[in-house]
Amino acid sequence: MNEISSKHRLAVVLVSGGMDSCVCAAIAHQSYSLAFLHVSYGQRTESRERTAFDAIADYYQVERRLVARLDHLRTIGGSSLTDPAIPVDQADLERNEIPISYVPFRNAHLLSVATSWGEVLGAQALFIGAVAEDSSGYPDCRPEYYEVFNRLIRVGTRPETHLDVVTPVIRMRKSEIIHLGNKLGAPLHLTWSCYQNGVRACGRCDSCALRLRAFREAGIVDPIPYGDD
Amino acid sequence: MNEISSKHRLAVVLVSGGMDSCVCAAIAHQSYSLAFLHVSYGQRTESRERTAFDAIADYYQVERRLVARLDHLRTIGGSSLTDPAIPVDQADLERNEIPISYVPFRNAHLLSVATSWGEVLGAQALFIGAVAEDSSGYPDCRPEYYEVFNRLIRVGTRPETHLDVVTPVIRMRKSEIIHLGNKLGAPLHLTWSCYQNGVRACGRCDSCALRLRAFREAGIVDPIPYGDD
Repeated sequence: MNEISSKHRLAVVLVSGGMDSCVCAAIAHQSYSLAFLHVSYGQRTESRERTAFDAIADYYQVERRLVARLDHLRTIGGSSLTDPAIPVDQADLERNEIPISYVPFRNAHLLSVATSWGEVLGAQALFIGAVAEDSSGYPDCRPEYYEVFNRLIRVGTRPETHLDVVTPVIRMRKSEIIHLGNKLGAPLHLTWSCYQNGVRACGRCDSCALRLRAFREAGIVDPIPYGDD
Repeated sequence: MNEISSKHRLAVVLVSGGMDSCVCAAIAHQSYSLAFLHVSYGQRTESRERTAFDAIADYYQVERRLVARLDHLRTIGGSSLTDPAIPVDQADLERNEIPISYVPFRNAHLLSVATSWGEVLGAQALFIGAVAEDSSGYPDCRPEYYEVFNRLIRVGTRPETHLDVVTPVIRMRKSEIIHLGNKLGAPLHLTWSCYQNGVRACGRCDSCALRLRAFREAGIVDPIPYGDD
């Protein structure tokens, strides 16, 4: 397939504003026209993530943008990301249990919005920047989860709909994702990973710790500022 | 299992305000404590359905109630239920294709909210009143869809979460659902099925036609009023 014909295909990309989804967008951009989906669910970092989403969408000149609000995830709670009464964990990258930042069944909500939108737009692919290893311990970031979700799309949509969830970075280490992003010209300087909602990233939460370790392993300087506001 | 111990188990029941979910609530009420979930997604009949939801919840004295708003389903459109520019079909119960009232991938959104809430509440079951035959032709109302969704819950939630989607009326005819509801004392007089948002049900849309045919088959008089407002 040459590049011109391949661009007639459309992909919905879930863009949180973080590095992994930014690199997913860069990958999708090679072969698809893009539609960007952002989901706000009452997470602590909502406004900062939305700023990053818009910046990345502007960078790729994406016109089809959808921002979905899932306020009930905050009402339901059960996670340090959505319940202000639950403190953000300090980093413990050796921990084996599911972290308190796990938002119960969150990715099914995100993928359901992407699937509904993708079905109406006639898209062929849904890109999500889930990472299984070197990462979060979230049950809904594992490859087998996406295999089952793809079966759900096949049984739960119109017969003429042919949509697949694509997880191009799921088996990569964070440092590999950074290398790939650099190679593809992904705007990592526009991304936000911190679980706090400051102007600068805190550098101490799980997500900052993972990001900083990954940039160190990649031998690349993280282009975003860190430190107390 | 005796009735007292069984009531220590908790079920989330998806209650649209229609007959099928009302009868599901009556079934769940036999063995579980209840939590009622209603989802508004910009459907034409939103306010009328919400009234029915509250009436049924009051009837069963349910304290745990969650109303989730999924406004993006209206933004996404693609259905006569969510897009005012698409007319409501006149009834054609012999049609084999997927009707225009199909909201793309809707039930995944509903079940995702139910699963997240159920996981946080520590529920054991999610009841949904999907009906495969004698009904809608929606792809996400078929038994195989729920088998796959249950696999998704198993791979996508905490290891200690043991939640199953239960579809007690999925293989029943509508007339059988009415008979069962009558037997269990389900408040069918409080339900709403019509795809229009009037004070009286229109009696002409797909959903009214199915309901009226089912009451005729059951040999029972539908307790709700019909006719032009």
